[in-house]
Amino acid sequence: MTLRIVESPREMRKLAETLRAEGKTLGFVPTMGALHEGHLSLVRASRGECQVTVASIFVNPTQFGPQEDFERYPRTFERDRELLEREGCEFLFAPNRAALYPEGFATAVRVERMTDRLCGASRPSFLPGVTLVVAKLFNLVRPHIAFFGQKDYQQCLVVRRMAEDLDFGVEVRMCPIVREADGLAMSSRNRYLSVTERTQARVLVRALVEANRAYLSGERSAERLIDSMRDVLETVPQARVDYVEVMDAGTLERLNRIEGKAAALLALNLGETRLIDNHILGEALDY
Amino acid sequence: MTLRIVESPREMRKLAETLRAEGKTLGFVPTMGALHEGHLSLVRASRGECQVTVASIFVNPTQFGPQEDFERYPRTFERDRELLEREGCEFLFAPNRAALYPEGFATAVRVERMTDRLCGASRPSFLPGVTLVVAKLFNLVRPHIAFFGQKDYQQCLVVRRMAEDLDFGVEVRMCPIVREADGLAMSSRNRYLSVTERTQARVLVRALVEANRAYLSGERSAERLIDSMRDVLETVPQARVDYVEVMDAGTLERLNRIEGKAAALLALNLGETRLIDNHILGEALDY
Repeated sequence: MTLRIVESPREMRKLAETLRAEGKTLGFVPTMGALHEGHLSLVRASRGECQVTVASIFVNPTQFGPQEDFERYPRTFERDRELLEREGCEFLFAPNRAALYPEGFATAVRVERMTDRLCGASRPSFLPGVTLVVAKLFNLVRPHIAFFGQKDYQQCLVVRRMAEDLDFGVEVRMCPIVREADGLAMSSRNRYLSVTERTQARVLVRALVEANRAYLSGERSAERLIDSMRDVLETVPQARVDYVEVMDAGTLERLNRIEGKAAALLALNLGETRLIDNHILGEALDY
Repeated sequence: MTLRIVESPREMRKLAETLRAEGKTLGFVPTMGALHEGHLSLVRASRGECQVTVASIFVNPTQFGPQEDFERYPRTFERDRELLEREGCEFLFAPNRAALYPEGFATAVRVERMTDRLCGASRPSFLPGVTLVVAKLFNLVRPHIAFFGQKDYQQCLVVRRMAEDLDFGVEVRMCPIVREADGLAMSSRNRYLSVTERTQARVLVRALVEANRAYLSGERSAERLIDSMRDVLETVPQARVDYVEVMDAGTLERLNRIEGKAAALLALNLGETRLIDNHILGEALDY
């Protein structure tokens, strides 16, 4: 079966309505394109669980700040289309900007509290832009399950909160981070890295491995785990650290002592590129 | 056919999905109960246009400010139920507060710009509360058409904007104001009025009649139309005026000279009661 490309929101809505009326389970993989193995793992997860998979490609302007990389964000539509087709994805929703944000657009969808920290603190447009566009996409695609990557951990939790709070009836599934052979978390932004930066970027996973090792050895002080990650990050002086945190994995509250499930979360800038990574402490991480 | 009452959001969602899958056109009349002829006219409009009508009753806490009348807002569920049944309404969705706003709720849905004036200026919680609850209700009831009363003119435009911007695929229909014999616009809050205040409340429609008369005589200066309404309002010194405006009927922008369709809009307080009214200039208004 070939991949069918849908550009018009109206057509997407009709299609979703028809598929739902036929009793099909719809899986949805929203992306900004520049697809890598991380995205494709989401398509596979959807294909494994749902009868029909819709991916979307839309580089969403509202989630980029004025100084951020909206203009240079990689756009590789033809290759993305081929990759999705090869995975057996049935539909690709690829609207243009004017179709989603016509003149006079004036609505905001925000999640409070959980968005004031981590990426939300350094990129104030990011999470409100995501919840806005995902609300729109959920209304057009009407999926039963939506698949997001754990790499954007805060985004996953925020989108899940929004979907529950607004009664979308969409289950938000968080799928494991896919990593390169050396451990670097896959990201469309990795292609911005120079050869040197690409090597330096390994410091993210190395810091997480170190925190995980300490955690597995019994360390439960969030502060000491954070310090252990900072020590690793300092070995690459070019890395400008944005945040290093250990937080409750469900609420993203800061912790003193870890008792339940906790996430270690990092963000840094290397040259012009912002990189993030995270890990649920105690889970396997062998690099 | 008897009216079926649905309390659970989950059950409402299932029901809507089933009805849509059967190809039924769903009409929706969201209310806060304390139903009057205005609400019933919306049910009739829905019955005339849709195959199934769902009304909702939910006194939405998020649209009341801390000093407002949430606690004393009239609750007349048994009578409302009877009225809806008599009108042939098929379903009544009546969730409780915890079902719509469980602990941890953190999402906001807002419309910018058009909400900073009129009722939005004096009641900052009102419109964000409305867009939030209506977004939730739209997701649960999944109507094709939603019916709102013109009495809350700004609310209608804001909800329509939200529905369009978030791609709900819901048509927002604005239905004419229903008035008492003496012209007072029907409102659940009219029952707060003392006998004296009830007489004084006529000043709202009298002001609109005066502006309409001037408009029909050729007056196109918004300022002079506003002054003519103020002159009428001043005949009731107990009326504490909140706003008197003449605005573009589509955008709610202030006007100097009226060229297109314009709305006259009023709000005032009489004792403990806030009353609003409006009129599209040039349309019939005979009281």
